[in-house]
Amino acid sequence: MEVEVARANHWISNSIVARRGVGWARKPRVHKLTEEMQGQYHYTIGPYSEPVLTVEPGDRIVVETRDAFEGAIRTERDKPSRRLRMPFVNPQNGPIMIEGAEPGDAIAVHIERMRPRGEDPHGTCCMIPQFGALTGTALTATLNPPLPEITRKVPVNEKEVRWSARVVLPYAPHIGTLSTSPEIDSINSLTPGSHGGNMDLPDMGPGSITYLPVRSPGARLFIGDAHACQGDGEVCGTAVEYASETTIRVDLIKNWALEWPRLEREDFIMAIGSARPLEDATRIAYRDLILWLEAEYGFGRWDAYMMLSQCGRVRLGNFVDPNYTVGAGILKKYIDGETG
Amino acid sequence: MEVEVARANHWISNSIVARRGVGWARKPRVHKLTEEMQGQYHYTIGPYSEPVLTVEPGDRIVVETRDAFEGAIRTERDKPSRRLRMPFVNPQNGPIMIEGAEPGDAIAVHIERMRPRGEDPHGTCCMIPQFGALTGTALTATLNPPLPEITRKVPVNEKEVRWSARVVLPYAPHIGTLSTSPEIDSINSLTPGSHGGNMDLPDMGPGSITYLPVRSPGARLFIGDAHACQGDGEVCGTAVEYASETTIRVDLIKNWALEWPRLEREDFIMAIGSARPLEDATRIAYRDLILWLEAEYGFGRWDAYMMLSQCGRVRLGNFVDPNYTVGAGILKKYIDGETG
Amino acid sequence: MEVEVARANHWISNSIVARRGVGWARKPRVHKLTEEMQGQYHYTIGPYSEPVLTVEPGDRIVVETRDAFEGAIRTERDKPSRRLRMPFVNPQNGPIMIEGAEPGDAIAVHIERMRPRGEDPHGTCCMIPQFGALTGTALTATLNPPLPEITRKVPVNEKEVRWSARVVLPYAPHIGTLSTSPEIDSINSLTPGSHGGNMDLPDMGPGSITYLPVRSPGARLFIGDAHACQGDGEVCGTAVEYASETTIRVDLIKNWALEWPRLEREDFIMAIGSARPLEDATRIAYRDLILWLEAEYGFGRWDAYMMLSQCGRVRLGNFVDPNYTVGAGILKKYIDGETG
Amino acid sequence: MEVEVARANHWISNSIVARRGVGWARKPRVHKLTEEMQGQYHYTIGPYSEPVLTVEPGDRIVVETRDAFEGAIRTERDKPSRRLRMPFVNPQNGPIMIEGAEPGDAIAVHIERMRPRGEDPHGTCCMIPQFGALTGTALTATLNPPLPEITRKVPVNEKEVRWSARVVLPYAPHIGTLSTSPEIDSINSLTPGSHGGNMDLPDMGPGSITYLPVRSPGARLFIGDAHACQGDGEVCGTAVEYASETTIRVDLIKNWALEWPRLEREDFIMAIGSARPLEDATRIAYRDLILWLEAEYGFGRWDAYMMLSQCGRVRLGNFVDPNYTVGAGILKKYIDGETG
Repeated sequence: MEVEVARANHWISNSIVARRGVGWARKPRVHKLTEEMQGQYHYTIGPYSEPVLTVEPGDRIVVETRDAFEGAIRTERDKPSRRLRMPFVNPQNGPIMIEGAEPGDAIAVHIERMRPRGEDPHGTCCMIPQFGALTGTALTATLNPPLPEITRKVPVNEKEVRWSARVVLPYAPHIGTLSTSPEIDSINSLTPGSHGGNMDLPDMGPGSITYLPVRSPGARLFIGDAHACQGDGEVCGTAVEYASETTIRVDLIKNWALEWPRLEREDFIMAIGSARPLEDATRIAYRDLILWLEAEYGFGRWDAYMMLSQCGRVRLGNFVDPNYTVGAGILKKYIDGETG
Repeated sequence: MEVEVARANHWISNSIVARRGVGWARKPRVHKLTEEMQGQYHYTIGPYSEPVLTVEPGDRIVVETRDAFEGAIRTERDKPSRRLRMPFVNPQNGPIMIEGAEPGDAIAVHIERMRPRGEDPHGTCCMIPQFGALTGTALTATLNPPLPEITRKVPVNEKEVRWSARVVLPYAPHIGTLSTSPEIDSINSLTPGSHGGNMDLPDMGPGSITYLPVRSPGARLFIGDAHACQGDGEVCGTAVEYASETTIRVDLIKNWALEWPRLEREDFIMAIGSARPLEDATRIAYRDLILWLEAEYGFGRWDAYMMLSQCGRVRLGNFVDPNYTVGAGILKKYIDGETG
Repeated sequence: MEVEVARANHWISNSIVARRGVGWARKPRVHKLTEEMQGQYHYTIGPYSEPVLTVEPGDRIVVETRDAFEGAIRTERDKPSRRLRMPFVNPQNGPIMIEGAEPGDAIAVHIERMRPRGEDPHGTCCMIPQFGALTGTALTATLNPPLPEITRKVPVNEKEVRWSARVVLPYAPHIGTLSTSPEIDSINSLTPGSHGGNMDLPDMGPGSITYLPVRSPGARLFIGDAHACQGDGEVCGTAVEYASETTIRVDLIKNWALEWPRLEREDFIMAIGSARPLEDATRIAYRDLILWLEAEYGFGRWDAYMMLSQCGRVRLGNFVDPNYTVGAGILKKYIDGETG
Repeated sequence: MEVEVARANHWISNSIVARRGVGWARKPRVHKLTEEMQGQYHYTIGPYSEPVLTVEPGDRIVVETRDAFEGAIRTERDKPSRRLRMPFVNPQNGPIMIEGAEPGDAIAVHIERMRPRGEDPHGTCCMIPQFGALTGTALTATLNPPLPEITRKVPVNEKEVRWSARVVLPYAPHIGTLSTSPEIDSINSLTPGSHGGNMDLPDMGPGSITYLPVRSPGARLFIGDAHACQGDGEVCGTAVEYASETTIRVDLIKNWALEWPRLEREDFIMAIGSARPLEDATRIAYRDLILWLEAEYGFGRWDAYMMLSQCGRVRLGNFVDPNYTVGAGILKKYIDGETG
């Protein structure tokens, strides 16, 4: 166990944020962002809301996230169409201001831990009319009759997700929506984009570091949409949505002007694109990964392009949101030994 | 001439706005919205900006729009990449508040006249790096070298657009970007959506009435992006962009909850969808047209669907913006004699 | 009337085929291709079928086409799912061999006339399960319940299409599927592509000349899928499908290596692309039009690109087939006076 | 080692083919399909070519595949545009007839082993003009200048692929193109579809069983396009293409009418969709997986849909071919204990 922690620490201590973050060497101050302190959650990500917290680079924040339905779906008899009113879904904590963050910088968000909140915690999964990958939607407009509305309440603990009497899934928590503010736009929390947003990437859980572009003073970090687990693509439109206590450590990397979010884990790095159609999300992710390998890992552009054709790894985040999200990654072992 | 005006008046007097608008029968009060009165133009459409004008339903407004580059591209030697800074393009007049407009209503915008402004008026067309339909872009990400940056300054008057020594095009003015505010989001003026936005529909010129959904109190109308002419799809990314004096008359239709913008001209009605991929924009437009024919023109849903398969008309607005825009229409002569 | 014919003749005599076709000046020999002579109709377009007719460039052919359902849907009570068996739909006449046609050439197909066949001719329109633009399909796979199956039989004559008691549409006949053979593939007749195929372009009627690439010896022309009328996009999946007597004149243009089909009418030229998603079909069409204006009409590439952004015209053929079809055109008056 | 083999045998003996294949219990007869026996390789998959071999269900075949360029690219100085002529690429062995296979059945292809052929075997990877995910292409038509043409020759052995002095990749062989014949079409070997085709799925290597629909008598199996390794999406357009000796065992499952290919490995099952845009390929794969879980594993449809939203796994085969390919899978441990 000790060895494992040491090993985990090892990669963190060699991570991008450890090498470049202005506050990583500091002893972190710990902040709480409880439901009470948050007060009004946010449904749109932008520069027009009041900060709820200001932290220094390197600080730790324990955040109480609400589930994507803000707790409105309490039993399996609750129909989403009765309980939810668009666009007031996917509530976000924040904005959290990071001191010193300015446009042209990046912030790092290391997710340290995610725990279910409340007694007898359950996650919620539901089929929402005109939402999901295998139904006509508001955008892929059809005239077919809708799918049924179904709600599932699923017991969740830090080991497993008891999907059904038959199927038990491992607890694989991650943050679905993580954002900095756009410069002048304010984007609903359902939509991912170059600011992050509703990416729904299963990789974005404990042990991950996400890098986001700073486009407004203080970065204005938003976080929410915890999932106890999620399959690639989030095909029915929802994961096992739950209220979490999520511990993050944030830091600031000066003068790292990202076009799109990037992610790092112990064994790989990943660039993230969000767009429609899905091939464009994938193009964005792979191009950004190539430019990253070129700029910071000493690969030639065409060598990186052709090499990723042999060893690139693609993760489908979601193909149900207003934009779809794809991560394109490469194992660190293929790029080790080079400066980052 | 008199006869023509009478005939033109005839269709207007039978239009949807004439039948349902709360202020159409009023003698319109005329407002001016000059550059000076506007002051700061807007680059994002939302509920967070200060109104510049409040009007009553039925009022007329003479608006001084700036060109999409806000005049920054003055000569054919000006390169867009040097003169423009994203997202500060496509400046919008507004927001204009319409008294009495509440969520669930629609507003009508009748474009009466569009004139070039300034002495020796010229329009501007340019090829912007990574923008346009036949180039890799920020979303359709490629690694190819960019296209050249080219700027054209084109003489414009109320009769014609002198494209080149060889080609003279008719003056066919229209408004590229027309919006009401989303409920909580603020969307950059380059992106069309269900709130209107940067639709780039050549039909949206003098003689057209556009109906937009009201999603925030007062509707918050934004207008800009005048084009002296534009081909279907705006293939290179820009039209003949010019500074205009645009005269509109606005009205309010209570309790007409639109999902997407709609448009009316003398001879047809049109529903408008904006999305990616392009087939989704077309699906949205056709579905909304069918639902409209069903709800207000006495057609059965499947009769409307099959009939539009025989006589529907599609206009491609743009396929260069962050969403693409399509209008689906039907000639009024096929739906006449029914109540609207 | 005489004047009109003379005028019509005028444009034909200046058309591309009149200027370049090897057989246009010849007095055409007239061939018949009746149902009996055709025998087995074809459901796939390729090099593996037996020719039914060989003609010389400049010859005229009177073709008896079957409707897209091969007559299997006889009454409004016939359900498509019971009467049709995939892939045996959209029967094609041909292949017709054009003497002297070799890979690298193009053939021209001038549609001269289209008449309904049979006594009391009716067209057929139907909603086919999992087919059409506003339903989940085999490719846009959803889990929604299907739309109803509905069949409409519609009286057709050379003046009008009596859609319903309420709506009468003009007779606007055109050929939905026109093809040469691919080099080695054989493509079902439902799918359009660079060989032509199921383009469903309303412009492809009497008064049009379609140019198709020759990719196998003799070109191997296939023709079928007559529509009495069709809206842009063929939204429900079918037009007013009818059995026609279609008169065409074919010719051969040597050494005109087309990438994609092209079309000419009295007042415009059009390039045609077929692909998914729909923006790719539009990109193909516009790029081919630009390259055409550059190669044969003396326009600079970037001038053509930017000019089409001001005056290009887009026609949506279909967005229901396995590939979608778009035509991008320009009025001849803007390109006149140049050599073709 | 013995234990490992036994364990491997264990899953095979419980696989779908072992339980349902008509010939699996037989002692396999071994066939060779050498280059000489193949003679003319095929570039199109259809019912019009001459069989090269007929086998009984359960037989083993050792196939000599050629690389995707048919050996024409010999050195790193060879430019693809000079050496290749479309559509004569991606040569396929076959067709191999499986005795007793009839439309409505499925065949199983168990890939047992893949070895590089020749002395000092090298794989080839190249950047081909207008081909690949991060360039304008014939379908995503742009006007940008092309990418450079680059050829890489890479040493390959049964342990590793020596990509460069810096990067050594594990040997992870798989078959890129595996097909049965369509009913009447003949589809070029570059295009994947419901018949299989050019799927480029890294999972389709030794240890996999692929199930393909039978649509013509004898199934007409085609195989080719061996890759020594490939990243998700095959982003530059080519993998490490090499000439292989591939050993497969084929079998026949009667009355298993597949809509799309399916795949089985020791730990998961996968449904495979190929279409454009990429979300449609993903929709196809997930829908087919749901229908499979419902029909054969005792899951309710909506339970399967919602469960896959929590534990489904997506593999991007390619997003560079005329259709894109996606596999959607689920771990067997979640579905065990049910009848297949």
